Amino acid sequence: MAYADDNLHFKIFSDPVHGFISVPKNLILDLIQTPEVQRLRRIRQLGVGHLVFPGAEHTRFVHALGAMALMQDALKSLSEKGTHISAEEYTSALAAALLHDIGHGPYSHTLEHELIADFHHERMSRALLLHLNDRFGGALDRAIQIFDDTYERPFFHQLVSSQLDMDRLDYLRRDSFYTGVAEGEVGVQRLIKTMRVHPPEGGADAEMTIESKGIYAVENFLISRRLMYWQVYLHKTVLAGDQLLRAVFRRVRQHFEEDSAAMVDEGAPALCFFLRQQIEADQLDDPTVRERFCTLDDTDVLYSLKRWMEAEDPILADLSRRFINRDFFRVTFLPEPPEEPLVEAWRAQVADWLVREGLSPAPRAAADAAYYLTFDFSRHSAYERTQDSIGILDRDGHVQELSEMTDTSTVAEMTQFVVKPYVCFPKAVGLEPETAVAG
Amino acid sequence: MAYADDNLHFKIFSDPVHGFISVPKNLILDLIQTPEVQRLRRIRQLGVGHLVFPGAEHTRFVHALGAMALMQDALKSLSEKGTHISAEEYTSALAAALLHDIGHGPYSHTLEHELIADFHHERMSRALLLHLNDRFGGALDRAIQIFDDTYERPFFHQLVSSQLDMDRLDYLRRDSFYTGVAEGEVGVQRLIKTMRVHPPEGGADAEMTIESKGIYAVENFLISRRLMYWQVYLHKTVLAGDQLLRAVFRRVRQHFEEDSAAMVDEGAPALCFFLRQQIEADQLDDPTVRERFCTLDDTDVLYSLKRWMEAEDPILADLSRRFINRDFFRVTFLPEPPEEPLVEAWRAQVADWLVREGLSPAPRAAADAAYYLTFDFSRHSAYERTQDSIGILDRDGHVQELSEMTDTSTVAEMTQFVVKPYVCFPKAVGLEPETAVAG
Amino acid sequence: MAYADDNLHFKIFSDPVHGFISVPKNLILDLIQTPEVQRLRRIRQLGVGHLVFPGAEHTRFVHALGAMALMQDALKSLSEKGTHISAEEYTSALAAALLHDIGHGPYSHTLEHELIADFHHERMSRALLLHLNDRFGGALDRAIQIFDDTYERPFFHQLVSSQLDMDRLDYLRRDSFYTGVAEGEVGVQRLIKTMRVHPPEGGADAEMTIESKGIYAVENFLISRRLMYWQVYLHKTVLAGDQLLRAVFRRVRQHFEEDSAAMVDEGAPALCFFLRQQIEADQLDDPTVRERFCTLDDTDVLYSLKRWMEAEDPILADLSRRFINRDFFRVTFLPEPPEEPLVEAWRAQVADWLVREGLSPAPRAAADAAYYLTFDFSRHSAYERTQDSIGILDRDGHVQELSEMTDTSTVAEMTQFVVKPYVCFPKAVGLEPETAVAG
Amino acid sequence: MAYADDNLHFKIFSDPVHGFISVPKNLILDLIQTPEVQRLRRIRQLGVGHLVFPGAEHTRFVHALGAMALMQDALKSLSEKGTHISAEEYTSALAAALLHDIGHGPYSHTLEHELIADFHHERMSRALLLHLNDRFGGALDRAIQIFDDTYERPFFHQLVSSQLDMDRLDYLRRDSFYTGVAEGEVGVQRLIKTMRVHPPEGGADAEMTIESKGIYAVENFLISRRLMYWQVYLHKTVLAGDQLLRAVFRRVRQHFEEDSAAMVDEGAPALCFFLRQQIEADQLDDPTVRERFCTLDDTDVLYSLKRWMEAEDPILADLSRRFINRDFFRVTFLPEPPEEPLVEAWRAQVADWLVREGLSPAPRAAADAAYYLTFDFSRHSAYERTQDSIGILDRDGHVQELSEMTDTSTVAEMTQFVVKPYVCFPKAVGLEPETAVAG
Repeated sequence: MAYADDNLHFKIFSDPVHGFISVPKNLILDLIQTPEVQRLRRIRQLGVGHLVFPGAEHTRFVHALGAMALMQDALKSLSEKGTHISAEEYTSALAAALLHDIGHGPYSHTLEHELIADFHHERMSRALLLHLNDRFGGALDRAIQIFDDTYERPFFHQLVSSQLDMDRLDYLRRDSFYTGVAEGEVGVQRLIKTMRVHPPEGGADAEMTIESKGIYAVENFLISRRLMYWQVYLHKTVLAGDQLLRAVFRRVRQHFEEDSAAMVDEGAPALCFFLRQQIEADQLDDPTVRERFCTLDDTDVLYSLKRWMEAEDPILADLSRRFINRDFFRVTFLPEPPEEPLVEAWRAQVADWLVREGLSPAPRAAADAAYYLTFDFSRHSAYERTQDSIGILDRDGHVQELSEMTDTSTVAEMTQFVVKPYVCFPKAVGLEPETAVAG
Repeated sequence: MAYADDNLHFKIFSDPVHGFISVPKNLILDLIQTPEVQRLRRIRQLGVGHLVFPGAEHTRFVHALGAMALMQDALKSLSEKGTHISAEEYTSALAAALLHDIGHGPYSHTLEHELIADFHHERMSRALLLHLNDRFGGALDRAIQIFDDTYERPFFHQLVSSQLDMDRLDYLRRDSFYTGVAEGEVGVQRLIKTMRVHPPEGGADAEMTIESKGIYAVENFLISRRLMYWQVYLHKTVLAGDQLLRAVFRRVRQHFEEDSAAMVDEGAPALCFFLRQQIEADQLDDPTVRERFCTLDDTDVLYSLKRWMEAEDPILADLSRRFINRDFFRVTFLPEPPEEPLVEAWRAQVADWLVREGLSPAPRAAADAAYYLTFDFSRHSAYERTQDSIGILDRDGHVQELSEMTDTSTVAEMTQFVVKPYVCFPKAVGLEPETAVAG
Repeated sequence: MAYADDNLHFKIFSDPVHGFISVPKNLILDLIQTPEVQRLRRIRQLGVGHLVFPGAEHTRFVHALGAMALMQDALKSLSEKGTHISAEEYTSALAAALLHDIGHGPYSHTLEHELIADFHHERMSRALLLHLNDRFGGALDRAIQIFDDTYERPFFHQLVSSQLDMDRLDYLRRDSFYTGVAEGEVGVQRLIKTMRVHPPEGGADAEMTIESKGIYAVENFLISRRLMYWQVYLHKTVLAGDQLLRAVFRRVRQHFEEDSAAMVDEGAPALCFFLRQQIEADQLDDPTVRERFCTLDDTDVLYSLKRWMEAEDPILADLSRRFINRDFFRVTFLPEPPEEPLVEAWRAQVADWLVREGLSPAPRAAADAAYYLTFDFSRHSAYERTQDSIGILDRDGHVQELSEMTDTSTVAEMTQFVVKPYVCFPKAVGLEPETAVAG
Repeated sequence: MAYADDNLHFKIFSDPVHGFISVPKNLILDLIQTPEVQRLRRIRQLGVGHLVFPGAEHTRFVHALGAMALMQDALKSLSEKGTHISAEEYTSALAAALLHDIGHGPYSHTLEHELIADFHHERMSRALLLHLNDRFGGALDRAIQIFDDTYERPFFHQLVSSQLDMDRLDYLRRDSFYTGVAEGEVGVQRLIKTMRVHPPEGGADAEMTIESKGIYAVENFLISRRLMYWQVYLHKTVLAGDQLLRAVFRRVRQHFEEDSAAMVDEGAPALCFFLRQQIEADQLDDPTVRERFCTLDDTDVLYSLKRWMEAEDPILADLSRRFINRDFFRVTFLPEPPEEPLVEAWRAQVADWLVREGLSPAPRAAADAAYYLTFDFSRHSAYERTQDSIGILDRDGHVQELSEMTDTSTVAEMTQFVVKPYVCFPKAVGLEPETAVAG
């Protein structure tokens, strides 16, 4: 696209994060030009995050390109260290990196909670991979094996999906770049340069490791990741935006259920499809569901909310307006989840306020309070050792698990799961949860 | 929003380009929270540019914040050099910088051609400024004077609108940052540090000047601007995207005119309002028009195109699909505009192709070719001396116009207007305009 | 110097790390122009580090400017948060930041071990501060109080000397920048923005704190600092260069002691002054010693080594040549210090090698081995809680010590002192310390 | 050195400008480890420039590494475009890029005027290349052919020495980075990506060209280069430092000529060698001269000046002190060279001042004024078309000379040589050249 588009074998993209990205003019470029991948151009990487970090409007499309570019760097580096990689493996690994997140929908976190029951984007990614593989006549067979971790050389899967995969390397670096949160910056090239397949032949028993000189870079990566979670992904205002969007969706779903006339069906058809009925995760392979899902993007959500701002239902209109004009609720973290009597008292206070504001008639106010007062938990563990650990390779060829090394005692701490309860409500109601809970 | 939101007097935004931006918690923050300004979050700065530079999804909102932040820097620097600025002037200048582009619509360049006759965003900006001023009880009186250049100290207007205004400084720096086109990088802080009001009292006869040591930085700024025009704003693929979008709008407008059933009215109401009728520029002050305009953003355009992909009219469906899936036409620059017989021959070739492709029935194909074959000019002058010139202040207090200085002979060259004709058509048709015109 | 040198009240320096640095044209600029500060231009910040990181030639001069610039930012931010700072305090704090490291000598780490017994650069800094204060007629009285922590508002001392002082903020950011070790990058502006004096009046009982939202940034700072220690300051090749330089100095000192003719006194007089006799730390206030110290910089060391390359003593010539041509010894970390019999065996091996190489006659080889085989410890603690802790201020005005907070369990780990024994010897000798110690 | 030093085939350097630089462990690494190349670590790239830009202490060593790294990128890109490059050619081109500036001495610009008559660093570079080639048994034969432009494929020479060679690309990018002059930033990777050998076989008639889409990047490069010249390389304070150093050297040479006792021979021997006698350019191949030259670096100059600060000759002491403490003369540009009577009057004024200051006895003051009052010209042409032009390759395979293209009319302007006369004198004398010449 930008620049050098007449180059012989590559199409060049200009990316502010990685510089020039060279896309081979083969299967990889064909995949990029599919509607399924182009659709990622209309899905922001950070969901509601751009409402908190105004420079962070970047999309899942440029992230997918970036993950593929890092895969190129990693494979080149591993080759130089003696791990042979065939041309077909090279292309398959690039495809797997490019498509690893293709199953994401708009405002993915919110969507996973409210739009489809038990939705996991990995499952939709797999459904789309299979579908594309049909269209490309099996050209993605090996990429799917890598994705599924059934390929005979498991280190490829680790490059696509592990604690230190190309996905994480790109998104941390990229989200740090676009949000301006410099502490999240990760030395991506350094990490890639310290990766090594061990044993280098890369057979069935080989694994991706980090050379021992890279342990501080890995530790720094984990800390940066933790910092990005608390300062960006789980930022209080991001949580507030997420809660608000979920409230809108629940309200619309209720209207559909009650078949109330409310103009909810003036929302975008692709979105209404998922709100009018409850799609279950095991319907994702159904072609109708898959096709609808593939037409759904951020514009449907925003368009619908703009329409619903004019709904007769004052609650739907108010919630939609709040989201569009970024007039979010307040989020307060609590030392522990509030007990039931306290919640009851708060709920009554919110209901009173709804009546006073003319948003809800008295008989319904108690029920409607559920859209204005929500509880949830933010949770994060920087290093999920149990899931798949990071092996450190010393100069004698021994591999040790990262958190067991004496130099990195901080890592052991980071394996702990941190859970923070929080409450979300309109500022104007005047709840004072800090005092209530502390007392 | 991000960080430090409990600070006493400022709300802090994290911007990847300028770092932290401090927004005073007064009129300025109130303005930012209006729906009119929040709407800029849903309008990309570069229109179709993000389809060429995948990292450049940044919006007019963050640009408006950036222009305001640079205004803070400029006013602070001018104060240090002895030009007194009152608190009210300070706030008014910030407001003017923040709101200078508020009248932009989605895909502004396209829109100025197809949506409203003789539209100029400055005119809509002014209408919205007046409207906001009403709502804020006259608090924007002075900002409007600055915008209109009727304020008694004209250097304020120059900071808001001139060859070296805060708008240009921010957008060049920002667009360079997000596209990854490093050559467009402008030494914004250096330029601001060399600005000086002369005479420093800043009365009615005073003007913004650049200290003589800054001439190379100014020259570099003009070259960078020129480079950004040819490599980004007027990139061939950007022109192709623009032509495609204009073709869609023209097709929809034709359906509305012919009152054909075609599902064009399933497009977003805010967009259809402007396509169903021909709004003239002098209707912009009409409250209905203004309100509709204020609900219009990128999501309406993209939502509508996604709907029109399913239109029965094969041409509308094809054009919409091409835009959404980034399957643009080809643009070829020509040494001079083609003569009529050649254009006729090309048109016939396109019409044949439309019939072959089943996009148009034979009787209509000649007329429909107008959607698939377009001609236009890209034009740009790096330095518009006639409009408002840049004065260089030497150490003896003399001001000389930039392009007249002996050290900057390149600048005189840049005052020339460069115009490049081009033709735009589907690659598959097989036109070979280079050969045809050269022969 | 660069740019804007005719500005009214400031001299502007162009710094690649912080951009433009504005130096007030008052005491601060006068201090910068003293020979004592200009001398810092000839002392590299990283000592032998530039021999490992070829881009890191930056000097203590630009670091001192940077620390002063950050002090300006910090004082401005604290003022905005309600802590009054008088003009005299402002200038004194800037002076203290500028001069905090003025007592450093060339290759400071090496020098502290070999050149002056029990040397601490803080002590020489204080001697020079007092001397400058005499010359400036007492203008530095308050800066010295701040330096000594006897000033009535102790938070000023914390800005100059604490875990999060301007010195550390600048050197970590700067060393990361120049070495290219991106993980060491610290969000300096973010940390400064979260600083707060508590209580804000800033009286005798007030302290510098970090607002609770800044804890992740602080944690990241500590991790970055740790990473810079292990990857830069205590890099194995840096340790090797340091050991080599110490060996040269010890050899020259031996020649002086033995009054051997060897051309050691062709070294730079300023350096020979400190090698010919053993200066003790309590002589630093002696004007002769102070004056000699002030003429000593990197050029004396390098000039002397280049001269000594031509010495008749083959050991002095060899050690000098190795340093100048960067032909360092090998450093190997050991799990624990080697036991005496093993050390004896190694020493014998080195002595044999010295004889074989013609560097030492057999009778002296055992003694000379001490220049070619050294043992030492690299040691570092990321967070020295006992020294002066970092207080975190929550929204209710309570201050808690950083390592006690539940969210930052990693910090507690970082309070541990890490000590790594190592051995240093010529590669050609063929010692295999890993095997020996492991066995 | 830094990182990854156990990699199989490459030694990795961490460079803040280009990131990781991979040095092949073959001839290239051996060359880097020679004393001749290591010596470049002690020669600053910008000579006195670091006294104006305090962050710019970078050396010719890291620049040489950078030029070699860019050569790797360029050769890789040209290969991808179909120009075959053999392994031997690859290594030879890397060697040529690495060694292209090996003949530079300390404060090169000053040295070329005062130390050796008619010195050109290219000539010394060639002498050193031949000398190294002897030592490496002819391994540099082809590199020397490339350097001399006698190799059968002339495009290699163009990569090493032309308007757009790797030397210029690295030094502009690097000097911009270290000085903080952002406008000088050059899109190095973009320029390299648009290079193409034409015809691609790269035979005797083939030349390096820039693809037509790269013309704006080239124009930007030329403007950046021009800007760096006027803002950095020919900065007034840089000129002043250069004049001062030349005055010191002339004074020392005079003492040697007069055989005055003055302690001039306490300067560094390597420097005194060149000041005691007048070496002519045709003596550079003389082994004694070459060896002396190879021991000369910045430390000798600075060490000598520090010694000469204590000279009995008050003029030598004063000039040396001024350089060491950065107390430079003033430089004023003049519209045209001053006429003789005016110069005479100024000279008398300076002589009076020298007597008043006790720097010179009355009888000698007129002659001594030549050290305190100097005239010179700064001169620069951004694009030296006559020397070797830049060819632009269009899509049809035609090559056109850059300055003849219609799109780049600014380039024609930049072919002009700009010459600025200036005068240099101590501020305290009170000359007012602006007035004198204007009047």
